[in-house]
Amino acid sequence: CILCAPQALADAPLPSWKDTATKKAIVEFVASATNPDSDSFIPVPERIVTTDNDGTLWAEQPVYFQFMFALDRIKAMEQDHPEWKETEPFKSVLSGDLKKVAASGMEGVAKIVAETHANMTQEEFAAIVGDWLATAKHPHTGKAYTDMVYQPMLELLDYLREHDFKVFIVSGGGIDFMRVFAEEVYGVPPEQVVGSTGEASFAMRDGVPAVIKEPELNLVDDKAGKPVGISRHIGRRPVVAIGNSDGDLQMLQYTTIPRSEADTTPRLGIIVRHTDAEREYAYDRESHIGQLKVALDEAPRRGWLVVDMKNDWTQIYP
Amino acid sequence: CILCAPQALADAPLPSWKDTATKKAIVEFVASATNPDSDSFIPVPERIVTTDNDGTLWAEQPVYFQFMFALDRIKAMEQDHPEWKETEPFKSVLSGDLKKVAASGMEGVAKIVAETHANMTQEEFAAIVGDWLATAKHPHTGKAYTDMVYQPMLELLDYLREHDFKVFIVSGGGIDFMRVFAEEVYGVPPEQVVGSTGEASFAMRDGVPAVIKEPELNLVDDKAGKPVGISRHIGRRPVVAIGNSDGDLQMLQYTTIPRSEADTTPRLGIIVRHTDAEREYAYDRESHIGQLKVALDEAPRRGWLVVDMKNDWTQIYP
Ligand SMILES: [Ca+2]
Ligand SMILES: [Ca+2]
Repeated sequence: CILCAPQALADAPLPSWKDTATKKAIVEFVASATNPDSDSFIPVPERIVTTDNDGTLWAEQPVYFQFMFALDRIKAMEQDHPEWKETEPFKSVLSGDLKKVAASGMEGVAKIVAETHANMTQEEFAAIVGDWLATAKHPHTGKAYTDMVYQPMLELLDYLREHDFKVFIVSGGGIDFMRVFAEEVYGVPPEQVVGSTGEASFAMRDGVPAVIKEPELNLVDDKAGKPVGISRHIGRRPVVAIGNSDGDLQMLQYTTIPRSEADTTPRLGIIVRHTDAEREYAYDRESHIGQLKVALDEAPRRGWLVVDMKNDWTQIYP
Repeated sequence: CILCAPQALADAPLPSWKDTATKKAIVEFVASATNPDSDSFIPVPERIVTTDNDGTLWAEQPVYFQFMFALDRIKAMEQDHPEWKETEPFKSVLSGDLKKVAASGMEGVAKIVAETHANMTQEEFAAIVGDWLATAKHPHTGKAYTDMVYQPMLELLDYLREHDFKVFIVSGGGIDFMRVFAEEVYGVPPEQVVGSTGEASFAMRDGVPAVIKEPELNLVDDKAGKPVGISRHIGRRPVVAIGNSDGDLQMLQYTTIPRSEADTTPRLGIIVRHTDAEREYAYDRESHIGQLKVALDEAPRRGWLVVDMKNDWTQIYP
């Protein structure tokens, strides 16, 4: 009956998740965390969820999408920088020699980031990223990057929010980059996005106030930087942490490992494992992007759920 | 009639505010910002409010309450630091010679902050601050510090939240210090508190994860640091900014000054002016704490509301 539909929906959450042990564990965690009569009940203000972005909410192969943005941006800026034809790493970016770009190391990446992510306001940067996202296409799928989000993860975020969990992104990606699309695509507002952050400065420019993005880094929100970003931006320990790589190891540890014997609040660690070479990509221990090795070995001991994309999801993209 | 009571309450917001032009301006701003038929309508996600804390939400005389905490803490730690009897600025703190402490300048303050605010976890620090707040009394009023919050400001925060504004604290005070009481006292959760922030590091200590507060500063969230803190933690421009001193000047500018002629979203700047020597304190241009001079002179030109505590408020503390 029509009147039963909402109840039926409530009874069948996470429609793109197969009825496996993984889905069952998630549903059971939420049911008991939100049941006031359960020993595992978690008060609403404590229902903090932190989730990684690259490889967890959207794809990250063949390279991080933000890096694709930076490369495209260098090409778009080429005409104003004739000197780049003779200067690395720009020369290699322009000639499409990505191996040589990679060989330029952290120093080369820093130069690319400085040229493409700094010396402008947050609003100016957001406009540039927005224009890029509206037109750029993924080299393998031909899809818009924001269409390469994982439908089951969108459902998971909605499901958690329906149960009064507050979802934060905590990612090694740039905070101002993710804020451009996180609200529309994931339903996560800018103030709930934590990411790698540059320095910034305030200035009045011709009587107009501006916060200028500076090239120096303030926080690398990856690995041990993730718990630091969480403590700085959120100020309390999450009850759910979701990631896909060793970059999430410390966030998973920080979230789930009890502080003492008295610390019995239930916590859920989730690792999204890329096992589906046909519908997406299959990679973990040996991958240069999204390497998953230490956290995968630690998962059984910690009780972290490992999502098997191939076997746990009926669908990848929306 | 009983059924009319909610409507009557809605008709009489801000009960501790006198019916002056100040209250009228606030109520009119909120009415038009929340009226979908108004040109001044502001969509809910954009309804970001940033408010200062010291001197805006609670008192700050004779010195910032957090500084009182630090001094008390040095005294409490004295027995473990016999060397402090002969080392400045600790020697002067212990002998109660606050002039000499002040004369030790930023270097002295940094030493006090390092000893009292660092080399422990966020949770350990919160427990210490919580214990202090539960017992410490203000030297003039004998009240608990958290009882020296401004009742009219509590009402204003509630009033804004009832109209779907999201309230953030943006203060020069320490972020982890304010987070200890902001949720209970102001209804502002830790993730909506922005303040001066120290560096931090992640470590596993005997198998238990911890984020350790470090003595170095990461952000001084005062003056030009406030728009930087806003852009970092919130990621969008507020529509309401509230402060009481020149430390809030740049936040007020950043919030209210139009970026272009097309930028017509209404914005509200509010300055709480300490005019009540009898019920609280009277100070502005010449004060060492909470100096208000440049922002006061700029207020008429910018259209910032100046709250006159003596004449606009029926009551100061709850
Ligand atoms: Ca990742
Ligand atoms: Ca102040």
